[in-house]
Amino acid sequence: MQDEPEVAVLRYGHRPGRDDRMTTHVGLTARALGADRVVFPDNAGQSQETVEDITGRFGGPFEVELTDALNATIRNWEGTVVHLTMYGERVQDVEGEIREAHREEPLLVVVGGEKVPFEVYEGADWNVGVTNQPHSEVAGLAVFLDRLFDGRELEREWEDADRQVIPMATGKKVVDPDEES
Amino acid sequence: MQDEPEVAVLRYGHRPGRDDRMTTHVGLTARALGADRVVFPDNAGQSQETVEDITGRFGGPFEVELTDALNATIRNWEGTVVHLTMYGERVQDVEGEIREAHREEPLLVVVGGEKVPFEVYEGADWNVGVTNQPHSEVAGLAVFLDRLFDGRELEREWEDADRQVIPMATGKKVVDPDEES
Repeated sequence: MQDEPEVAVLRYGHRPGRDDRMTTHVGLTARALGADRVVFPDNAGQSQETVEDITGRFGGPFEVELTDALNATIRNWEGTVVHLTMYGERVQDVEGEIREAHREEPLLVVVGGEKVPFEVYEGADWNVGVTNQPHSEVAGLAVFLDRLFDGRELEREWEDADRQVIPMATGKKVVDPDEES
Repeated sequence: MQDEPEVAVLRYGHRPGRDDRMTTHVGLTARALGADRVVFPDNAGQSQETVEDITGRFGGPFEVELTDALNATIRNWEGTVVHLTMYGERVQDVEGEIREAHREEPLLVVVGGEKVPFEVYEGADWNVGVTNQPHSEVAGLAVFLDRLFDGRELEREWEDADRQVIPMATGKKVVDPDEES
C-alpha cells in the first residue's frame, strides 16, 4: 500500500484451463487486500487480463506481471520472502516478526499451486501456515494479508476508478467516482 | 466451534464442472477456519465428497450437507443470517454487532456463487462486504471467519484425525496423532 514497503504476491505454478479461476482469484485477492503487485507464471496470461481489467474499472494502483523465472524471482528478491504452506509455522506465532520485517523492507508472499519444490521452502525467510489444515491458497492469502496489514487494507482508497461500490445495508449501489465528487 | 452457537456456511449456487473447485474451497475454508457445517446445493455432490474425505483424514467434527432448498434454508434459519457480498456494509463497521449476535444464537453465512437473487439480500440480517471490491468468495469467507472468531479458530483442536501436520520452519512433517500421544 501507499507509503509502505512494497508487498508483492507470487503465484507459484499454473495449469492453463484448470487453474485459471484460482490464479485469477489469487490476483484479485492480492489487489483487494492491500498488495501492490502480483506475479503470475508466464502461461497465466488469461488471469493477467482479467485482473488488469478489474484494475482498470475499479482502480489502482496495482500491477500484474508475468515471469518465466519463478525461482529466480524468489532467489533475487531484495527483502523478505514468506511462503504460505499448510506445513509451515503457525501464522499467529510468526505474524508479529513478519510485520516488523515489512516495516523495513519489501515483502514477497509466495502462494503455491500444485507442486512447490523444496527449493522454495528453503529460500523463504518464513514458511507460514494459515492453519495446518488443507484448505485454499486464496483463503490463506486473504487471512495472511488481513493480519499483515492489521486491517489497514480495508481503508485503502483507489485511484482512477471508473466505478465505485457504495456500501449498502440492502441492495446494490455503483457510482462513477468522478460524478460523485 | 465447540461450546459456541453453531456457524454454518451456505454456498448459494453451483455449476457442476465449472464451479467444483471453488465450491470445494468454500467447504474446506469453512472447515479449516472454524465453521461447524457447510451446506451445498444438491448438484455439488463431488465437492461434498472431497470435503468429507478431508474431514475423514484430518479430523472433525465438521458436517457437509446438500440441499435442494437454498432459499428455504435461509428463510427458516433460526438465528442470524449474514450474506457476504461486495455490495454490503463494510465488515470493519458491522463485525462487532455480528460477533455479539453470534454469542446468543447460531449464525448462517451465505456465500454467493454467480447470481444471487434479491430475496437473499432482503432475507439477510446483514449484507457484508469484505472490501467493496470484486475478488473471491473464498477470500471473503476466510477474512470474515477469522474476524468473527477473533483468531480463536486457529487454536481449534481436531478429533478423530488419521493425520496431523506438525508446524515446521522448513520442510513437511505429518504424523499419526494416535501414535503421537
